[in-house]
Amino acid sequence: MKINKCFANLAQSYLFVDIARKVDAYKTAHPEADIIRLGIGDVTRPLVPPVVDAMVKASEEMGRAETFRGYEDELGYPFLREAIAGYYAQKGVKLALDEIFVSDGAKSDTGNILDLFEQDNTVLIPDPVFPAYVDANMMSCRPIEYINANKENGFLPLPNPGQKADIIYICSPNNPTGASYTKAQLAQWVDYANSMGAVILYDAAYEAFVQTPGAPRSIYEVPGAETCAIEICSLSKTAGFTGTRCGYTIVPKALRPEGADLNAMWRRRQTTKYNGLPYVVQRAAQAVFSPAGMAACQENIAYYRQNAGVISAALTEAGVWHTGGVDSPYIWLECPGGLDSWAFFDRLLGEAGIVGTPGVGFGRNGEGYFRLTAFGDAARTAEAATRLKDFLKAL
Amino acid sequence: MKINKCFANLAQSYLFVDIARKVDAYKTAHPEADIIRLGIGDVTRPLVPPVVDAMVKASEEMGRAETFRGYEDELGYPFLREAIAGYYAQKGVKLALDEIFVSDGAKSDTGNILDLFEQDNTVLIPDPVFPAYVDANMMSCRPIEYINANKENGFLPLPNPGQKADIIYICSPNNPTGASYTKAQLAQWVDYANSMGAVILYDAAYEAFVQTPGAPRSIYEVPGAETCAIEICSLSKTAGFTGTRCGYTIVPKALRPEGADLNAMWRRRQTTKYNGLPYVVQRAAQAVFSPAGMAACQENIAYYRQNAGVISAALTEAGVWHTGGVDSPYIWLECPGGLDSWAFFDRLLGEAGIVGTPGVGFGRNGEGYFRLTAFGDAARTAEAATRLKDFLKAL
Repeated sequence: MKINKCFANLAQSYLFVDIARKVDAYKTAHPEADIIRLGIGDVTRPLVPPVVDAMVKASEEMGRAETFRGYEDELGYPFLREAIAGYYAQKGVKLALDEIFVSDGAKSDTGNILDLFEQDNTVLIPDPVFPAYVDANMMSCRPIEYINANKENGFLPLPNPGQKADIIYICSPNNPTGASYTKAQLAQWVDYANSMGAVILYDAAYEAFVQTPGAPRSIYEVPGAETCAIEICSLSKTAGFTGTRCGYTIVPKALRPEGADLNAMWRRRQTTKYNGLPYVVQRAAQAVFSPAGMAACQENIAYYRQNAGVISAALTEAGVWHTGGVDSPYIWLECPGGLDSWAFFDRLLGEAGIVGTPGVGFGRNGEGYFRLTAFGDAARTAEAATRLKDFLKAL
Repeated sequence: MKINKCFANLAQSYLFVDIARKVDAYKTAHPEADIIRLGIGDVTRPLVPPVVDAMVKASEEMGRAETFRGYEDELGYPFLREAIAGYYAQKGVKLALDEIFVSDGAKSDTGNILDLFEQDNTVLIPDPVFPAYVDANMMSCRPIEYINANKENGFLPLPNPGQKADIIYICSPNNPTGASYTKAQLAQWVDYANSMGAVILYDAAYEAFVQTPGAPRSIYEVPGAETCAIEICSLSKTAGFTGTRCGYTIVPKALRPEGADLNAMWRRRQTTKYNGLPYVVQRAAQAVFSPAGMAACQENIAYYRQNAGVISAALTEAGVWHTGGVDSPYIWLECPGGLDSWAFFDRLLGEAGIVGTPGVGFGRNGEGYFRLTAFGDAARTAEAATRLKDFLKAL
């Protein structure tokens, strides 16, 4: 018996554990403190009524013999894949139903998709980054190259034609930075990947927050992406599905690196090592894409975006450099006064009663930066913005 | 970019496609034929009322801000892990909550668990077998050794001490054969694995069908299993969850091959590459383990077991050797008259209007055998049993 040695290379992540410990210590020392949490990347608004209704109805169907559902295609019911195809059609992207793979979320797919590729491919990952990309690759000892996201490039790094890459992770709008690529910038990545024979794994989990006219909500809005990109998306932030779970991955049939049929390979992978999404959740997800569902979800997104605007305005007023907050629920700010990420965390908590996330937790280039999120209550977020302004003025 | 070459070694499985094609052709030729399907391994009874009620209630909770649930521990809510621990306590097995990992089903876990082991471990798989075990291992080019299940050993092969193995798949009660190991037989496997330093992946998906007094429903009923076995289970057959999706995997903390902490590794694997089960499904699963839920699920299992008994009695009356049908919903019969699996399929369909599954679809040792399932309607199954007797007499 030989254990997978690659696991030994994984760094233990204590980021959110450390945050919780510090917040607990602060509360113990200051039991009267009124703490506002802008640290967590989780939604707070409940599921919208059309989604709840669909899930209740589907649950009841499962209790009657004539409407009960057992095993189904692991790739998703046609009714849901049709709804997703319709959603893409609105973005001007035409998908065949068998290019759409329903799953339990983006995180699973960004890791599991690696099964299709040899272990010695070079993986290009931006820094800072959503940590699961790195960990999933380290678990199979894949060689990782980092690409620097920083203030100079607005945390939107562009490809370096001299750098070799086989697999490229792109998340736009980005977690943690909230920065979003333009179509012209994405086109540079698409051209680079096509010229290199590389595959882009495009995480579009935050696409529903994009409101800037002409800004891309799918990489397939860029010509040529269908021969180099897999798009992985989720309803977690689109529809508040973080506890309901539904994602989907697009593997175009035109994507054939080295002549391989990745669409057929992913189908085989999923039918062998995945069981499919619950029927009741697929009905809930279908309701997200209905006109009533979409309208209600967009109201929630507008609510969060309003929060983001309030935070962003406070930072602008205080003269603090930041990105995100426009097409994204995340605001990524440069810690003022040369503070490092954790020093800023401590002072923001101690002096303003606000909890955020130290940027260094997302990679080396996150040092000196800080993430705030817009997923909280509007009144509390407005209160946080006021405190933030006062804190920054006094700093 | 290098594509995973191992996928090229996967055989395309046409078993159920071929069955569907033959049935369609028969129906076209005989539009009046009344066909009874005993081929599919899927449940037909709806979810029981306590489960539906729990899922409806949980769906409604998700629609209210004060009871909404977002991200949670990928390993499962404590309320569900406590319910599973209670279920095991009834079998005399004591589990810590952090030894229980909730998932979307057994198939996912029997494949994904391989992430913890180096690719050059030798995998021991019985033949015939549930095909996903083989495919998941072939996807990473793992060396597979088969162990023969056959009429001589009652389709319950025992370990050969001279044969090397690192990873051992055992499914009991077995799919496809319905045969179930006794505790004494499982003890031989446990001793073999412990002496070899091997890990048993024990698929207990059909454990709820076990009724024979003293027969094991968990490998942990066998002393020593906690140092060599991972148990993977599912509510698919226990509670009709094939379309609702809930499984769980037990990784004991005492299981430490080569000193590795497999429990911690699986936790890391799942938190990196899995998103957790929907809240509403976890509430549904909790209701399965409630007294009312268990009683109702056991009624359904008794219904299926009654079907199995009817089929088994017909075969016994006709003098046809078979296994399963007692602690299992599957009946595995030797094709009479020296017919091969597909010849028997054709004649059973043509002369009795019954669809089953050719044993050869589950491996080389399945040739000359045939699987019938007990998941159908009771009246139709009784009609099938009558036809089967007549057919076998005339054969």
